[in-house]
Amino acid sequence: MPEEDDGIWFRESFSDYIIFENKMEKVYFTGHSKFQKIDIVKLKNWGKTLYLDSKIQSSQIDERVYHESLVHPSLLLHPNPENVLIIGGGEGATLREVLKYKQVKSATMVDIDGELVDMCKRYMPEWSSGAFEDKRTELIIDDAKKFIENSDKRFDIIISDLTEPLDDGPSKYLFTVEYYQKLYDLLKPEGVIVLQSGPAFTGLLGFMGSVNQTLKQVFDEVIPYQSFVLSFSMMWGFNLGFKGLSHKEESLKIGERIKERDIELEFLSSDYIKGMMLLPKAILKELNKGKISTDKNPFVWDF
Amino acid sequence: MPEEDDGIWFRESFSDYIIFENKMEKVYFTGHSKFQKIDIVKLKNWGKTLYLDSKIQSSQIDERVYHESLVHPSLLLHPNPENVLIIGGGEGATLREVLKYKQVKSATMVDIDGELVDMCKRYMPEWSSGAFEDKRTELIIDDAKKFIENSDKRFDIIISDLTEPLDDGPSKYLFTVEYYQKLYDLLKPEGVIVLQSGPAFTGLLGFMGSVNQTLKQVFDEVIPYQSFVLSFSMMWGFNLGFKGLSHKEESLKIGERIKERDIELEFLSSDYIKGMMLLPKAILKELNKGKISTDKNPFVWDF
Amino acid sequence: MPEEDDGIWFRESFSDYIIFENKMEKVYFTGHSKFQKIDIVKLKNWGKTLYLDSKIQSSQIDERVYHESLVHPSLLLHPNPENVLIIGGGEGATLREVLKYKQVKSATMVDIDGELVDMCKRYMPEWSSGAFEDKRTELIIDDAKKFIENSDKRFDIIISDLTEPLDDGPSKYLFTVEYYQKLYDLLKPEGVIVLQSGPAFTGLLGFMGSVNQTLKQVFDEVIPYQSFVLSFSMMWGFNLGFKGLSHKEESLKIGERIKERDIELEFLSSDYIKGMMLLPKAILKELNKGKISTDKNPFVWDF
Amino acid sequence: MPEEDDGIWFRESFSDYIIFENKMEKVYFTGHSKFQKIDIVKLKNWGKTLYLDSKIQSSQIDERVYHESLVHPSLLLHPNPENVLIIGGGEGATLREVLKYKQVKSATMVDIDGELVDMCKRYMPEWSSGAFEDKRTELIIDDAKKFIENSDKRFDIIISDLTEPLDDGPSKYLFTVEYYQKLYDLLKPEGVIVLQSGPAFTGLLGFMGSVNQTLKQVFDEVIPYQSFVLSFSMMWGFNLGFKGLSHKEESLKIGERIKERDIELEFLSSDYIKGMMLLPKAILKELNKGKISTDKNPFVWDF
Repeated sequence: MPEEDDGIWFRESFSDYIIFENKMEKVYFTGHSKFQKIDIVKLKNWGKTLYLDSKIQSSQIDERVYHESLVHPSLLLHPNPENVLIIGGGEGATLREVLKYKQVKSATMVDIDGELVDMCKRYMPEWSSGAFEDKRTELIIDDAKKFIENSDKRFDIIISDLTEPLDDGPSKYLFTVEYYQKLYDLLKPEGVIVLQSGPAFTGLLGFMGSVNQTLKQVFDEVIPYQSFVLSFSMMWGFNLGFKGLSHKEESLKIGERIKERDIELEFLSSDYIKGMMLLPKAILKELNKGKISTDKNPFVWDF
Repeated sequence: MPEEDDGIWFRESFSDYIIFENKMEKVYFTGHSKFQKIDIVKLKNWGKTLYLDSKIQSSQIDERVYHESLVHPSLLLHPNPENVLIIGGGEGATLREVLKYKQVKSATMVDIDGELVDMCKRYMPEWSSGAFEDKRTELIIDDAKKFIENSDKRFDIIISDLTEPLDDGPSKYLFTVEYYQKLYDLLKPEGVIVLQSGPAFTGLLGFMGSVNQTLKQVFDEVIPYQSFVLSFSMMWGFNLGFKGLSHKEESLKIGERIKERDIELEFLSSDYIKGMMLLPKAILKELNKGKISTDKNPFVWDF
Repeated sequence: MPEEDDGIWFRESFSDYIIFENKMEKVYFTGHSKFQKIDIVKLKNWGKTLYLDSKIQSSQIDERVYHESLVHPSLLLHPNPENVLIIGGGEGATLREVLKYKQVKSATMVDIDGELVDMCKRYMPEWSSGAFEDKRTELIIDDAKKFIENSDKRFDIIISDLTEPLDDGPSKYLFTVEYYQKLYDLLKPEGVIVLQSGPAFTGLLGFMGSVNQTLKQVFDEVIPYQSFVLSFSMMWGFNLGFKGLSHKEESLKIGERIKERDIELEFLSSDYIKGMMLLPKAILKELNKGKISTDKNPFVWDF
Repeated sequence: MPEEDDGIWFRESFSDYIIFENKMEKVYFTGHSKFQKIDIVKLKNWGKTLYLDSKIQSSQIDERVYHESLVHPSLLLHPNPENVLIIGGGEGATLREVLKYKQVKSATMVDIDGELVDMCKRYMPEWSSGAFEDKRTELIIDDAKKFIENSDKRFDIIISDLTEPLDDGPSKYLFTVEYYQKLYDLLKPEGVIVLQSGPAFTGLLGFMGSVNQTLKQVFDEVIPYQSFVLSFSMMWGFNLGFKGLSHKEESLKIGERIKERDIELEFLSSDYIKGMMLLPKAILKELNKGKISTDKNPFVWDF
């Protein structure tokens, strides 16, 4: 009776009543940084995988789907993305995708958790694949809020790759009107911001809706979009915010820009980028009810 | 130490190495029909849910997403859908969506498992919500293959809502070139077929790709599409096949037809239907490698 | 890939870090009485099983082991057990074992949960197997404490078959010095009490030790013993308290009394009863540190 | 919603329908030797734990219970145990217990899996606590069968600490009449053998019963006994075989010998050793039906 199922598993709760379990093959690292619990393991079905506080962050099987979906719409909608700011994104794969653009002259990445970045470099080099060593990269280990308040550099693109604002978490004030206003000010006249915004499905849109409605208080145009990420077992949501630029006009140029800029994409295409922005009726309706997050009354995610 | 997690759960394997568990609130029915194991339960998070052979079929939380995605693209792409054939679809929700169209004069549903249909009527009346009593409905409990070989009725729309072709399952020969040819012949000159086609994600496209490539052997035009179904934890795939009609031309009329026909949709919109048909690059590439299924050498799904 | 493991399971936590899962075959009843959550199910490996508040109470596979171990030592150590009081024991199997003795003239059972008793009669008749209909049985649905304060009947044997004293549970004050004193007074001059006392293993002896030390404040002699119950995955503990009688003298007569009284036992024998009372050194040591429970400062079990 | 339950777990099936899960804190080693899968981990509740082929072998929380129960009855029943042979026992804890006796002049340990022994030395030094370095120890990495056929040394005590005879496992022929005859011949005129014999509960006695009945074909007297091991979630069985000696006579001397030999025991006492040998009626009955294992028709354990 040797059971295939016996052995080491990673368990992740999606709610009080839903549990997801993945058989493991190997443990690379399990421990705590100053900010969070870090598990870097190899799953039988999905390969190398990073968990923070026991929540999946990215997995070898489809980290490209997530990171392409996060990064490229913003850069392809911008006429000339030269200076990019990445907030969070400790694995280095967001950075990797950004650096695919020859136009990019500087990529500034700010992550609060230096130990996490070190562990990712050491155990998950496939994610950054050299990006941290690129001369255009500037890595800053610091609180994003502090950086943003003190920086006098201006950016074409800002990519927010942060975990959800939990009540006791560090990112609670990184999704408010006041904070978005600071990001708006950090952008050059024609700037684009994109934020990972959590699950994109009816009943689970608290976070995505709050980002959407809060962004609208500050940015000239806001476009939500979604992409399915298998290892999240979920349709995933993002929000784009535009300063100056017109989404409609820029979006006509995506196909052309992919070619011109010679960007190699595994998952995204001009067509699929269009598709990502066409959301179901029920979701659009629910997004409109998103809570506006302010420093005084910040949105907190307790799905 | 009373644990919230303690009590009755439904466990479903997605592979040898991935397990998904849902806390249960109630059991309505658990038993076997002549063809399959049937469990009708109430899940804490998702409400009433049907499992066949311990695989989730549809759940109160989002059965509308699945059934709207399965039914409406085909009917909205057709100028005048009067006669509809449904193969499978025991819950009665596919039928319910079809009957929303006043144009529909007859809806013929063929399901092999009469006991399943009875259990669904009894314990899940929300799914069919009266559809079985509609005068336009003709319910036939029979093997689809036998029905199709003997029917002399012609249809505008055929909807295939069957479980995957497993090696020892009954639907192995309901996805072959020869079978599709018979369906093609059953369609009127301007007819549309749609088939639920399983998971739509790289690495899991065996079934969707086989349906896609096999359909192409028979139909004049084939369009794959996808929609995310939360309770499947998966992006779900479908394939449309056209006889006579041009997808491109008809698709321009979807928005208008939704209004004219006065179809109430919760999830789908003209825009989202367009979005469903814009697939990621990697998926399109993999679909092209789908195996052509024939009676002699039928495709069998062993994900 | 139909997985044997898929389907309905019952999950029980033994601690925050240990989970035990049993595949189910059938659900007889799942619901709440006024006092507790009741699940009566059929487990694939163990047959019909009762859970209260998601904790296993007794299972067809070995309820005889538990109930024989609970009931017979006390009755066999008594020269003439005529009047027996059972506190708790809703399933009716404790009663069934007591009624095996022709000497027994009356068996008074007091259980607070009438709905539980009804469900057990209806769905688990194998447990009581007619005991509730025996003319010697008196069933009282009431709070044990109230009964004991008001009863003027006297008993030869008292059997306490209660769940552990949890902080918010109803049995917190049914294990104190003051309560035991009342039980002592209810016993005839030569009386024996026995209490189910929870797990019997080092590190888990809080409950068993507290019963042991608290009994010693009141009874003339106290004897702990243990018996392994498979469906509890645990060595289980009991405590005997003697009024007047000498355990040593009476225990010499057990073998003879089994024969004389013509008691049919499946699991217990004169030898095994002796063995149950020979505890490991480390357990005896830990029992001695048990906390004395008083009305003012009752012992509460939070393993 | 950070769930305490999330993270890394070890899953062990006890049958097709029973699963036991333990939360993990750390992984020391996970890999394969030439003979088996080895996992050395730290469990939240039980501390450091060894799994072979995903079956628990011993755990910090109660390895002393298992090893004291395995080792001391045999040595305490022998008037002068000078030469001891241990078959299996890779962790080194069986050896550690044997070396507590100053009478022991040599302890020969034969284990087939040298890599396992190395891993245990490295990651679980608490088990052997120096025993491998004791001058009286002779460690032989070899097949037990080969060793036994070629050894001309004679022993007072033989301790068999082997995993169950599985159909495809290496120990299938280490539990037969023929093999036991060889062990009998290796014993000095007054010798004792003890074998770990698997679960000791009705319905699960296949292995324990087969060892019992097979031993009886060869040894002059056979005594089964049991001890509860928490980390096995099970009452565990052992069998003693005597050559020349009388169990009854020797057992009277156990208490005295513990003192004389100044053996420090945590769990066992003279009384508890007696108790271990008093088995329930139903178990004794079932042991008598054990299958006699022969080289031609070996018993195979497929619980």
